Amino acid sequence: MAERLPDAALDTLFRTARTANGWTGEPVPPETLVALYDLVKWGPTSANMQPLRVKFLVTTAAKERLRPHLSPGNVEKTMAAPVVAVLGQDLAFYEHLPRLFPHNPSARSWFEGKPELIRESALRNASLQGGYFILAARALGLDAGPMSGFDSEGVDREFWQGTSVKTNFLCNLGHADPSKTFPRSPRFDFTEVCELL
Amino acid sequence: MAERLPDAALDTLFRTARTANGWTGEPVPPETLVALYDLVKWGPTSANMQPLRVKFLVTTAAKERLRPHLSPGNVEKTMAAPVVAVLGQDLAFYEHLPRLFPHNPSARSWFEGKPELIRESALRNASLQGGYFILAARALGLDAGPMSGFDSEGVDREFWQGTSVKTNFLCNLGHADPSKTFPRSPRFDFTEVCELL
Repeated sequence: MAERLPDAALDTLFRTARTANGWTGEPVPPETLVALYDLVKWGPTSANMQPLRVKFLVTTAAKERLRPHLSPGNVEKTMAAPVVAVLGQDLAFYEHLPRLFPHNPSARSWFEGKPELIRESALRNASLQGGYFILAARALGLDAGPMSGFDSEGVDREFWQGTSVKTNFLCNLGHADPSKTFPRSPRFDFTEVCELL
Repeated sequence: MAERLPDAALDTLFRTARTANGWTGEPVPPETLVALYDLVKWGPTSANMQPLRVKFLVTTAAKERLRPHLSPGNVEKTMAAPVVAVLGQDLAFYEHLPRLFPHNPSARSWFEGKPELIRESALRNASLQGGYFILAARALGLDAGPMSGFDSEGVDREFWQGTSVKTNFLCNLGHADPSKTFPRSPRFDFTEVCELL
């Protein structure tokens, strides 16, 4: 039976973790990005579809390709981040189901030719994997700065041209400079958004 | 600076955690569900929108309301689960932004009257919160059994009638009977779905 994690781990993952808005100079080695994905990949997805695709921008040249597509308020912190992850969702995820979901050979046919179901399933499951990604980064001692403020068509053209992948969101990665973190915004209480039936 | 979590915690969250398909008789007290939400709520969402809404079905009567809407393969394990969470997304999330995102009074206007952006933002961010939910359950020593196999219009009618909430996915919660867990399905390798630029 699984054990509850110690309080320090719950703090690192949830309670004291904060979205990073500035960075120390400490780099993030490529091995850490592989370790990050090697945690994320184990998180569950519907029919094991794993629609997440990631471009890790680690060079100045790659980040410069992203710059013109960022909302003005996101430019400075993103260009300063050691790594910027472009998280995409592959709308052709169902082509891989015969390999990923081998115990049900008909899984591919659940999606083929159903663009609305494809779009919704890809977004739902790539975003679940996005949640795993943010928490896995924190679990490895990184800080994350997820962002929706960018021109998604521009980022699609720049990084996913000629593929079936569409951008979902961006996530800066590194070690946060706490002096640049914003004050925490309010959260809903349990009784406002949850109910026991 | 945040520390990397110990290997045992990475196992509990990702590496050895498995989707539950059957349950021991051990109950899940209501306090644990409050503790679960009180972790989930801290995870980041775009503009702090927090579109997740949850009905925790803890009584047999509530689970019987869900039964007719489940895919046949999901009925037995779901009816046997100590708790079934119905995770929804509130499409009126933007009405709360003046309170949730107080430093930018115009945030509500980014979404108002834009149904496609509303739908996409709600699904993306409620699913991010869904990822936090699954990992927070594991962090508290629970096992999770997330599911997309159900009639979403039926579940919407049964549990969210008269509201702006739509069902996203279901998640059984409890303590897994490991003898009922399926063999693990394959995962993509880093080099198949990630790239360093």
